[in-house]
Amino acid sequence: MLECLRHDAALVEAELDRLLPLPERGPRRRLQEAVRYAALGGGKRLRPFLLLQSARLFEVPDARALRTAAALEMLHCYSLVHDDLPAMDDSDLRRGRPTVHRAYDESTAVLVGDNLLTEAFAVLADPATHPDPALRCRLVAGLARAGGLGGMIGGQAIDLAAERAELELPGIEELQAFKTGALIVEACRAGAILGAAEEADTKALERYAQALGLAFQIVDDLLDAEGDATALGKPVGQDAAAGKATFVGHLGVEGARRRAEELVDRAKEALTPFGPPAETLRQTADFVLTRRA
Amino acid sequence: MLECLRHDAALVEAELDRLLPLPERGPRRRLQEAVRYAALGGGKRLRPFLLLQSARLFEVPDARALRTAAALEMLHCYSLVHDDLPAMDDSDLRRGRPTVHRAYDESTAVLVGDNLLTEAFAVLADPATHPDPALRCRLVAGLARAGGLGGMIGGQAIDLAAERAELELPGIEELQAFKTGALIVEACRAGAILGAAEEADTKALERYAQALGLAFQIVDDLLDAEGDATALGKPVGQDAAAGKATFVGHLGVEGARRRAEELVDRAKEALTPFGPPAETLRQTADFVLTRRA
Repeated sequence: MLECLRHDAALVEAELDRLLPLPERGPRRRLQEAVRYAALGGGKRLRPFLLLQSARLFEVPDARALRTAAALEMLHCYSLVHDDLPAMDDSDLRRGRPTVHRAYDESTAVLVGDNLLTEAFAVLADPATHPDPALRCRLVAGLARAGGLGGMIGGQAIDLAAERAELELPGIEELQAFKTGALIVEACRAGAILGAAEEADTKALERYAQALGLAFQIVDDLLDAEGDATALGKPVGQDAAAGKATFVGHLGVEGARRRAEELVDRAKEALTPFGPPAETLRQTADFVLTRRA
Repeated sequence: MLECLRHDAALVEAELDRLLPLPERGPRRRLQEAVRYAALGGGKRLRPFLLLQSARLFEVPDARALRTAAALEMLHCYSLVHDDLPAMDDSDLRRGRPTVHRAYDESTAVLVGDNLLTEAFAVLADPATHPDPALRCRLVAGLARAGGLGGMIGGQAIDLAAERAELELPGIEELQAFKTGALIVEACRAGAILGAAEEADTKALERYAQALGLAFQIVDDLLDAEGDATALGKPVGQDAAAGKATFVGHLGVEGARRRAEELVDRAKEALTPFGPPAETLRQTADFVLTRRA
């Protein structure tokens, strides 16, 4: 399983490298260097992996899905750069390296995020992504929905609000469905769009992604509570220290682990209609549970 | 002329109001309030006006062009919110009111900009904008180009770089072509796209918009140098105080005014093929020269 994640991550890395070329010189070159610092050379690339794997269920060749996968990862990277800003989570470390505003400066980090967000849509709208413009529009709309007020940005708004400390379990689940779930669901949905999937298959993949996304976030909480900053490549214990309500805070370590296991089972069940070709997606669910970083 | 700008600004305002509805309650409602604070109730709406007027040349009804005009204005507003941030220009006042990070806080201002940028693409990709998906993809691609490294973000990168102090006249012109020109050109080009314009007509509108955009920026420099903060609704003299090279610094007040006049003449010449229907765009060029705010 890990081998296969690594393999796809290398494909995505190469695609991002192609899509974010350096201008020859000048101040725009420095900015693009920072964009490449933010987007290249790190991360599990879980979201583009889910997209590529979902697309493969419908026999979409990698070459046809890779630009969309890279655009999705650009959106993810933009959100990390802006979330790390001093005014947001004020993080110094990301993927084992200084965050963009630490390695460069704060204004560069704002522009790097803005540029990755803009470029994600530029990539999707380009005819090179898919010959059918109606399909490209659906990809653009889907990414905008996952990134917007009903997705990642809405989740950040909830997360930054004072009320975060008082969230009960359903509230935390809703927050995570916005903040991380929406883009994970969109990754699988984009694979289905590229594969011209039937509605029932798309819905099944969405159920898989919703359960997987929540399990992923609970394991994040567990890793944060268990606290191996070196393996994670970022500081640990920040949420609890900031008085934020977490899954572990509500369920305890054992309860949170059981909940994650249930969700992984539910994710795998959702894949039943796809039979053996969905084996990698099943293994991905198991990996989410056992990952150490 | 001013009447007509005011009329279209009201149409754009109403469209933005529709496109940015408030959620019922909770932290996402507060964020959307800040989004509406940033996008509604101010500004000349010059860019959407240019889009509507360009579209009218090709007999596109306002109802068909308004969503695109609003999306363009969202992109413009996002750029203002992020440019005003403490890490960027650190501005307290915009359109006569506290900037978003002053009226709310810095994290809200980051998210407000991110959301307006995301929403602009969501609006363009939606079938309600135009029934032809290929045309919608061209609008998305155009806006992303104008907003990206070859447009506004590239311009900001140049502007923030230390070298700005040493820019000669061609360098300042290039900076402004990126920073403000690209979106003004895209406004006219989007009107042409919506109107299924011939290539020659599109090129003529681009020449108009390039000259107009540069004239607009030179007049901005003049207004900044002459310094009526109340009329402008923002602080004056900031560029000069920051040691940034400006048109007025290089050409003097008289020379800068002459250069703006030449550009406005050139802009009007570019409209010759369109005859009388382009009269409003001609008057817009004159207005750019005589505006006091």
